[in-house]
Amino acid sequence: MKVMIEKDFETMSETAKTVLLGHMSQAKRVNLAITAGKTPIKVYEKMVATVKNSPNYDNVHYYNFDEIPLPNQTEGITISDLKKLYLTPANIDQKQIHPLTIDNYQEQDHKIEAVGGLDAMLIGLGEDGHFCGNMPQTTRFNETTYKVTVSGEEPWFVPEMMQKGMSFVTMGPVSIMRVKHLILIVNGKKKASMVKDVLTGPIIEEKPASFLQLHPNLTVILDQEAASELN
Amino acid sequence: MKVMIEKDFETMSETAKTVLLGHMSQAKRVNLAITAGKTPIKVYEKMVATVKNSPNYDNVHYYNFDEIPLPNQTEGITISDLKKLYLTPANIDQKQIHPLTIDNYQEQDHKIEAVGGLDAMLIGLGEDGHFCGNMPQTTRFNETTYKVTVSGEEPWFVPEMMQKGMSFVTMGPVSIMRVKHLILIVNGKKKASMVKDVLTGPIIEEKPASFLQLHPNLTVILDQEAASELN
Amino acid sequence: MKVMIEKDFETMSETAKTVLLGHMSQAKRVNLAITAGKTPIKVYEKMVATVKNSPNYDNVHYYNFDEIPLPNQTEGITISDLKKLYLTPANIDQKQIHPLTIDNYQEQDHKIEAVGGLDAMLIGLGEDGHFCGNMPQTTRFNETTYKVTVSGEEPWFVPEMMQKGMSFVTMGPVSIMRVKHLILIVNGKKKASMVKDVLTGPIIEEKPASFLQLHPNLTVILDQEAASELN
Amino acid sequence: MKVMIEKDFETMSETAKTVLLGHMSQAKRVNLAITAGKTPIKVYEKMVATVKNSPNYDNVHYYNFDEIPLPNQTEGITISDLKKLYLTPANIDQKQIHPLTIDNYQEQDHKIEAVGGLDAMLIGLGEDGHFCGNMPQTTRFNETTYKVTVSGEEPWFVPEMMQKGMSFVTMGPVSIMRVKHLILIVNGKKKASMVKDVLTGPIIEEKPASFLQLHPNLTVILDQEAASELN
Repeated sequence: MKVMIEKDFETMSETAKTVLLGHMSQAKRVNLAITAGKTPIKVYEKMVATVKNSPNYDNVHYYNFDEIPLPNQTEGITISDLKKLYLTPANIDQKQIHPLTIDNYQEQDHKIEAVGGLDAMLIGLGEDGHFCGNMPQTTRFNETTYKVTVSGEEPWFVPEMMQKGMSFVTMGPVSIMRVKHLILIVNGKKKASMVKDVLTGPIIEEKPASFLQLHPNLTVILDQEAASELN
Repeated sequence: MKVMIEKDFETMSETAKTVLLGHMSQAKRVNLAITAGKTPIKVYEKMVATVKNSPNYDNVHYYNFDEIPLPNQTEGITISDLKKLYLTPANIDQKQIHPLTIDNYQEQDHKIEAVGGLDAMLIGLGEDGHFCGNMPQTTRFNETTYKVTVSGEEPWFVPEMMQKGMSFVTMGPVSIMRVKHLILIVNGKKKASMVKDVLTGPIIEEKPASFLQLHPNLTVILDQEAASELN
Repeated sequence: MKVMIEKDFETMSETAKTVLLGHMSQAKRVNLAITAGKTPIKVYEKMVATVKNSPNYDNVHYYNFDEIPLPNQTEGITISDLKKLYLTPANIDQKQIHPLTIDNYQEQDHKIEAVGGLDAMLIGLGEDGHFCGNMPQTTRFNETTYKVTVSGEEPWFVPEMMQKGMSFVTMGPVSIMRVKHLILIVNGKKKASMVKDVLTGPIIEEKPASFLQLHPNLTVILDQEAASELN
Repeated sequence: MKVMIEKDFETMSETAKTVLLGHMSQAKRVNLAITAGKTPIKVYEKMVATVKNSPNYDNVHYYNFDEIPLPNQTEGITISDLKKLYLTPANIDQKQIHPLTIDNYQEQDHKIEAVGGLDAMLIGLGEDGHFCGNMPQTTRFNETTYKVTVSGEEPWFVPEMMQKGMSFVTMGPVSIMRVKHLILIVNGKKKASMVKDVLTGPIIEEKPASFLQLHPNLTVILDQEAASELN
């Protein structure tokens, strides 16, 4: 594991952009899974400036690693978010986008194997220790891509935002371990304690992201606040 | 994970030999960690027939992944065993042998990183679910190469063969995950139940080898007896 | 480059089989391009014995690297030969076979890139220094997969067997260089002089196989006769 | 091959910096060979700003790929230049610098193999079609690292700057082909014609850099002037 501690959100984002563009600049097909959410907003802003309308990155294929379907919508939360933040402003061709959905999740691992594997994956960290859709209480380390149906008893269940019985899908720990380079970005004081726990504590399913310590090529990019409880 | 079920000990050994020689036949330095014990005896017998005095395998470098020092001996149990079973009969040059010892274990991970990583590792499985020196009760998934000092309270403590306070060293789960290709060989009825548990059950430190399910390139070679509880 | 000199055709074939099965035993998709012709006959005989009806090699996908169409036939010479020698007796599923044809050759490089590249390629050597369909006088080192139309002036033109104006396709030098592990097998006294030339002489388009010296992971397996002019 | 055409020297340098930092950000030993000369000046300026006194790049090891010894000097032209432009201002630890010299060139290929190979190499292009020390008339495609002794008859011999009988060393085409990712940077109108020749013309020893077309992972970064003769 390499831990890079950057001054602030801006430099964290700049460094993450550099790592992704480094992969994307290779002269072969590059398969990339990228995260939705707030943490990568500036990473994508910076990437759009470079990638938009450039012929240099036609070799890059994009995957999402989790998905939450929305009632009465054809697209789920994750892919909608990725399109809004990056894929649409960067003008990425449909042929380069490979959505994981609640319907095709059972093919996800095979689909990725069939293209030679993921070269890199950008992920974030939840305050509760989740990564991708691997949540406390519903994560088993021996899962590939799997579906979770929400019981309402989970510690992260928020009645205002979720419904009992709803489902989502996520690549599981076994799938994540096959990615050639994992890039974890985290910012902010609120996550500092969890950063410490998952990067230095025991590897337990209750804190799913602790599992990331096992990855043979993990680059962690933190701002100073997120790093503040590490020594 | 790929599980190959072979008729018997003989064919299990033949298949494992093929996998190792496949790696060794490449035209570049190949770093191999290999296991001592009874399971690989015929693998090595077969390899010696091919490798002995051959100029074809000068590019292969050998590592042991655990070691138990012996009182009043310069060499530990593992390396002695590897020499007896394979390295000496195959006439491997000293320059190609890189022993892990109780004294140099803190350099092991760096040493392996500095040669580009292990291309392959041949391991076995203990009836109690251990692999390498990762034993029930003393294994933490977040360890690199580490030292264990025996308290005498461990479930695998055998007073006739061990002493309280003795130490051994082993590459830990984090180190194992960095190996490019893991090859697990198991034979015999006695291990069938543990084979099932560690390959299909939960990933828990109490059964250290359950961890192997996470490896992105794990080939398991079983004889029919060892596979008899899998469906 | 690694040059393995084996006693005879039998041991050359045994060694080549081991190298291929080594690749095929990995726990991930393996893409393999294999050669037709006489040299690999015993390699395939041995592989069939292991692979036939085995569930262990479902992860292996097969490609041919050249093709000569036959008038009034749906299948070309190469794929027919590969089916006869290996694919049919080994009972390989159609889904694992990806034929290069005179019609789809322009997609070949992209198709291979899209599955993560070829893990290994087994090739032979012609007495005239050709490899794959890269023949003297029609080979340019900067070609990917390309089509050759025969003028009748080529040194290898045999009026009894070929027609002026006929075409064939082959992966070119640029395509070959992308293969992760190249395995060249050669047997027999008749090729000894060309073996010496292409492995130790200048790299020139007139002797296309001289180009193989540039490959970063080339394993050459010779019988003693083919090796007899090397020192 | 991927050809990236950037607006000017500034953006060419920015892109090259990104590609190199991308590699360097991985969580494992990274072996990098880098070029001296004028083309990379701004690349290094930008890298120094990021790398200087940062703990994030301790995993990066630096190699030079050619060297011209200077009379009465302990250090050659290349390593002196690299130190001046990058290694010293970036405050790189001696332990991370592995100089190729006129005295140790015969160990260069073995030394690089023993650390797992070069992950990336940054090179430039000469107006005469040379790359590294592979010059017109003295380059043979089948060389690994080799020594050239200057006869004075070479087309690039400049009496004011060179002496007959002087020697230099360079990694040869076989060595270059083993690098996992090649990055070629070129700027300026003066090189536009040679850029076209070596990237699109025949692969011939007279224009050594034409050979680069064969590399399976070559990223070319040009400014618009250098790209002006490409279509």
